[in-house]
Amino acid sequence: MLTVITYDVNTEDPAGQRRLRKVARHCVNYGQRVQNSVFECVADAAEMVRIKNKLVELIDPEKDSLRFYYLGNKYQTKIEHVGAKPTYEAEGFLAL
Amino acid sequence: MLTVITYDVNTEDPAGQRRLRKVARHCVNYGQRVQNSVFECVADAAEMVRIKNKLVELIDPEKDSLRFYYLGNKYQTKIEHVGAKPTYEAEGFLAL
Repeated sequence: MLTVITYDVNTEDPAGQRRLRKVARHCVNYGQRVQNSVFECVADAAEMVRIKNKLVELIDPEKDSLRFYYLGNKYQTKIEHVGAKPTYEAEGFLAL
Repeated sequence: MLTVITYDVNTEDPAGQRRLRKVARHCVNYGQRVQNSVFECVADAAEMVRIKNKLVELIDPEKDSLRFYYLGNKYQTKIEHVGAKPTYEAEGFLAL
């Protein structure tokens, strides 16, 4: 099944910047980056729970947020993209 | 039906910053901001086409991107949120 993961990490301080890098790195390991803070993961339910639990550990729940959209197995027709398709490097920086 | 709209707008120059404000403002008019660049819109198919067409006009397709996830009518069980729930002001700035 496909899960869309979006995140907001508060990067006002160095600790936040570290959290952002860790969250991005974890998502990159398990999903396809489609926008700066948007990943798509194809994983079964058990694996998705593990991915989610790790992300929950990485964020500061007072400052950051994660959002998961479960699109199921028939997701191809549920997604539409318009515009640029940048490629991203694993560490979370936009590779232009 | 619920549509999740995510966007990446390249804000390296003032024109990009203007595009970002316009995109955010348009999304705010039609949806609930749930993260910095993530909106959820409840709209029927015809209205969603209008919202999308307007957003497509606002972006620079060489530099920016939009992504639409169509979650249908039974979306309540397909969404999970973890962590902070900030409120956002209409102009696109985080209101802490």
